[in-house]
Amino acid sequence: NPMRDGAVLPILHLNGYKISGPTLLARMDPNELAILFRGYGWAPYFVEGSEPASMHEAMAATLDHCVKEIGDIRERARTTGAVPTQPRWPMIILRTPKGWTGPATVDGHRGEGSWRAHQVPIADMANPTHLAQLESWLHSYRPEQLFKTSGELHDRFRRFVPPSRMQMSTSKHANGGLLRVPLDLPSVLDFETPVDRPGRTDIENTVPMARYLAEVIRRNQNNFRVFCPDETTSNRLQALFDSTDRQWSGVRLPEDDDGGHLSPDGRVMEMLSEHTLEGWLEGYLLSGRHGLLATYEAFAHVIDSMVNQHCKWLETANKILWRRPVSSLNLLITSTVWRQDHNGFTHQDPGFIDVVVNKSPSVTRIFLPPDANTLLVTTNACLQTTDLVNVIVADKQRHLQFLSMEHAIDHCQKGLGVWTWASTDDGVEPDVVLACAGDVATMETLAASELLRREFPDIAIRFVNVVDLFALANEGEHPNSIADADFESLFTADRPIVFNFHGYPWLIHRLAYRRPNHVNLHVRGYKEQGSINTPMQLAIENDVDRYSLAIDTIDRVPRLARIGAHAKNRFIEAQQHVVRHAMEFGIDPPELTAWTWPAELSNPLVTSFSAGG
Amino acid sequence: NPMRDGAVLPILHLNGYKISGPTLLARMDPNELAILFRGYGWAPYFVEGSEPASMHEAMAATLDHCVKEIGDIRERARTTGAVPTQPRWPMIILRTPKGWTGPATVDGHRGEGSWRAHQVPIADMANPTHLAQLESWLHSYRPEQLFKTSGELHDRFRRFVPPSRMQMSTSKHANGGLLRVPLDLPSVLDFETPVDRPGRTDIENTVPMARYLAEVIRRNQNNFRVFCPDETTSNRLQALFDSTDRQWSGVRLPEDDDGGHLSPDGRVMEMLSEHTLEGWLEGYLLSGRHGLLATYEAFAHVIDSMVNQHCKWLETANKILWRRPVSSLNLLITSTVWRQDHNGFTHQDPGFIDVVVNKSPSVTRIFLPPDANTLLVTTNACLQTTDLVNVIVADKQRHLQFLSMEHAIDHCQKGLGVWTWASTDDGVEPDVVLACAGDVATMETLAASELLRREFPDIAIRFVNVVDLFALANEGEHPNSIADADFESLFTADRPIVFNFHGYPWLIHRLAYRRPNHVNLHVRGYKEQGSINTPMQLAIENDVDRYSLAIDTIDRVPRLARIGAHAKNRFIEAQQHVVRHAMEFGIDPPELTAWTWPAELSNPLVTSFSAGG
Repeated sequence: NPMRDGAVLPILHLNGYKISGPTLLARMDPNELAILFRGYGWAPYFVEGSEPASMHEAMAATLDHCVKEIGDIRERARTTGAVPTQPRWPMIILRTPKGWTGPATVDGHRGEGSWRAHQVPIADMANPTHLAQLESWLHSYRPEQLFKTSGELHDRFRRFVPPSRMQMSTSKHANGGLLRVPLDLPSVLDFETPVDRPGRTDIENTVPMARYLAEVIRRNQNNFRVFCPDETTSNRLQALFDSTDRQWSGVRLPEDDDGGHLSPDGRVMEMLSEHTLEGWLEGYLLSGRHGLLATYEAFAHVIDSMVNQHCKWLETANKILWRRPVSSLNLLITSTVWRQDHNGFTHQDPGFIDVVVNKSPSVTRIFLPPDANTLLVTTNACLQTTDLVNVIVADKQRHLQFLSMEHAIDHCQKGLGVWTWASTDDGVEPDVVLACAGDVATMETLAASELLRREFPDIAIRFVNVVDLFALANEGEHPNSIADADFESLFTADRPIVFNFHGYPWLIHRLAYRRPNHVNLHVRGYKEQGSINTPMQLAIENDVDRYSLAIDTIDRVPRLARIGAHAKNRFIEAQQHVVRHAMEFGIDPPELTAWTWPAELSNPLVTSFSAGG
Repeated sequence: NPMRDGAVLPILHLNGYKISGPTLLARMDPNELAILFRGYGWAPYFVEGSEPASMHEAMAATLDHCVKEIGDIRERARTTGAVPTQPRWPMIILRTPKGWTGPATVDGHRGEGSWRAHQVPIADMANPTHLAQLESWLHSYRPEQLFKTSGELHDRFRRFVPPSRMQMSTSKHANGGLLRVPLDLPSVLDFETPVDRPGRTDIENTVPMARYLAEVIRRNQNNFRVFCPDETTSNRLQALFDSTDRQWSGVRLPEDDDGGHLSPDGRVMEMLSEHTLEGWLEGYLLSGRHGLLATYEAFAHVIDSMVNQHCKWLETANKILWRRPVSSLNLLITSTVWRQDHNGFTHQDPGFIDVVVNKSPSVTRIFLPPDANTLLVTTNACLQTTDLVNVIVADKQRHLQFLSMEHAIDHCQKGLGVWTWASTDDGVEPDVVLACAGDVATMETLAASELLRREFPDIAIRFVNVVDLFALANEGEHPNSIADADFESLFTADRPIVFNFHGYPWLIHRLAYRRPNHVNLHVRGYKEQGSINTPMQLAIENDVDRYSLAIDTIDRVPRLARIGAHAKNRFIEAQQHVVRHAMEFGIDPPELTAWTWPAELSNPLVTSFSAGG
């Protein structure tokens, strides 16, 4: 938007060749190349040649012209005050020889102006001809005029060294953290989802988050944007449009006024290209601003490589003293594997976090908030951090609500913890630890604990929920990993752990393989079994449903294994019923869809659950 | 190449809207859109409108015209016999309303011709107005004229049902496996790298593979291609150019004759876009042909999402009875993490295989051949398979050679096994199992075993090398995983295992966490520590060097832990020497670079090692 935003002047440098062949754009007919970039929306200017002195002048003149043109476009927009349609910004196509000013010929082959100039124009310095050629080449830059015999730069060139305030380390363009202003964030308390009793009501978890983000946008009109591949509404983030629009500088049609939410000043950046969005967000963060990218979980893999490289950049940048912190790259991974009720197998892939865990622990964080309040607390915390990649995994569909805001804050601060209200082992050793991470995983694990308690009223269950995935990582391997002593006190020294995980189950083993009691850790998760299934059918196919978890528990608690055959039989029949129902009606049995956590099962010690919320 | 290849007629369907907003291309000025596609090299034809009958005619006429134009281009090329320059192929830009022929208005909002027509034009059928509107909409297609009251198609339309030989399942266009002809493959024996004694000589592992592939191309001129992002030469596959060229239909310059290897008939597809290459290869396989994509390891993540989806497609297609098998998607992952001597941290990422292991075991295979002969055997085997994604991880640099072709065949068939010649535990229980997977990992592990044997001459070492990564997977979790009994007999019931892995170390734990003796499995691998390092310096930073492995062994073998302090001290000093040398000279100490496996250490029982090769 030329009325308020900055501009980029792209320079496409065509030197003709890649490592060992011509490039496509360099060999295109110049007219075709020009229309390609006009088709992209630019006004291309060509600077072409191989004579350094004249090229220097041509490039300087073209740069001046383009900078003036950018200024004119912005000036025109600001003085007319009219809502601008997409202006045709200038760009430069610069053609020079590859290996320019390098050796013209090496061993009888063309050097300058050829792919052979890539990286190492002359190799093998044991060859005296090569050595002489190298010397003559380097002499061509007349070092004797540039440097004193001592090797120092001649005084007459010293004035070209920029003063320290203009050096790269102090330039806001290279060191965007210099410009960073922390966000003015509202209190999460103002966006609380009321939770009187845990597991009784359901909402779409991303809706309160969107209301909160709308307020963040309201308060931070110049340095916060949300990026999303045409899914803002699909991801139930439409409350953002209460305070902003989609950024749109193109043609408008009258029907856009009916819910189109298009504006050249919009703070929501939508484009059906995860690559472009990730690139925009990186640029936005590196120039001192803040942002969040929301995307379908399965398609986060599209930006695996980009996020990898950003992690590597952060890890390296953190070691460079002059670099000021930049805002974290925040990713909301939503529309997740367990609720692809009509999209099916292609949309089932929770593996983006498997890529992220391979990057340096100093720059990576992964959270799986199970409900709306924990999602808000997590988001609020992530927006305050710097120099991290924060991945938040939370589905957009209606899910049960478990924690009041006060409990959510406590739980998220710990990263993982016992849910006392769902546990029956206070003061005794548990028969089993039921653990979970993720929204659907938490609901199914709770439902499994109900099944077990109905069948075996004296069962001692410890219920553990994990929000901060790295809390599980082997002690010392991540800044957020808890001490082994704490791990053992939560997960016991020798009792079976049935862990229901949102993602691929082996990720938990990969994180916790050196943890105490790992031998008794039994993890369920997505194992690439799926189609266009009902939620319960999909869960059953991957053994993460309530019945499978209850069966897993019976199989692993020796006392129950001896008496549980009838219960197991009932659970298997219940699964068969679900599958038959799904095949016949295409939906889950209503009593399962409507399932909530029975109030009478909440630990009586904590029935005053909501008092503090 | 219109002289010999088929053609694709692309249809860009612009219906104006995404899920909840306008699309960029649909809102572009039509002239700008036309020049964009002319800039891409196409001749665009527009078909635009909303009146079904006239659109039907316009589309049919345009299709006829385009098909004729394609025919003309091919005919002209074939009759003139001239080497064609890039022809301007036709394409169609089809503009119709989104939700075409759907309800015009729903609840007072525009339906047809709006993003609101996405997926579900009218929801909430409990609303009687909606139900009536749905009925009226469906009636607009006049089902009473199409179907009998019994629900069957009226006889007069039956003739439009294609005969079975023209149905999708029997069409070569939809079921490319029908066209697949197995490759005529040369014998790997003809491309053997002589290995008289293990670990004494080094070559670039991909060079014999390239010679072999050149012969594959020679024998299969119509159905095999190699795809590579401008790295064919960088990946040391230039021997391919002995039998073919890079496919190139663009402008040629005289200097291309000097090693450019450009030809419109080239079988090597180079483009600096991993996305495009992967898409080309998928299309090539799905139309019944064969291929291999070679790429830098770190940048394989660029195609994570595409390979994921291809795995899902294969997994699903394998369940569809009429689908004939297609050739496997073969990926050579090279220029690997351990030898990024000048590229550094950005080029260090062995995590592509971490993505692949999450996909269905029925369609995924991963191999880490340690030398040239095992690489050849693996490649030869992969090229014969169907319906798989085969990932071969092998670096391009000079590496030690270990196995003659006969031994390589035996070893690859087993997938993993003891290397008797490098073991000292035949007939006794080992003190330690030294295991490895990958070229550099194997060399360092061998070197560690030398260090240990020099320090502790009576040490009983079992040396295990793994080529087929999935052989390690928990029993029953992958078709290639070995039985637990075999695992235990290889890796022992209770002895320490020091495993040096090519990739991220936790991947081995993720695969083998339920294996016997997992508690004693100690894995080293890349842990995101790196810069522009010498090979040894990089290995030391990640604890995968010979000295670290020897120290790991001392720490884990109780007998050595008690006496090994002096040896450890020497190993630490040796590491310090390497790091100082790297900092001072920028290279590794020559005695380390020149290290080979001492002939006298080879198990005397197998000194006739090469006899059978």
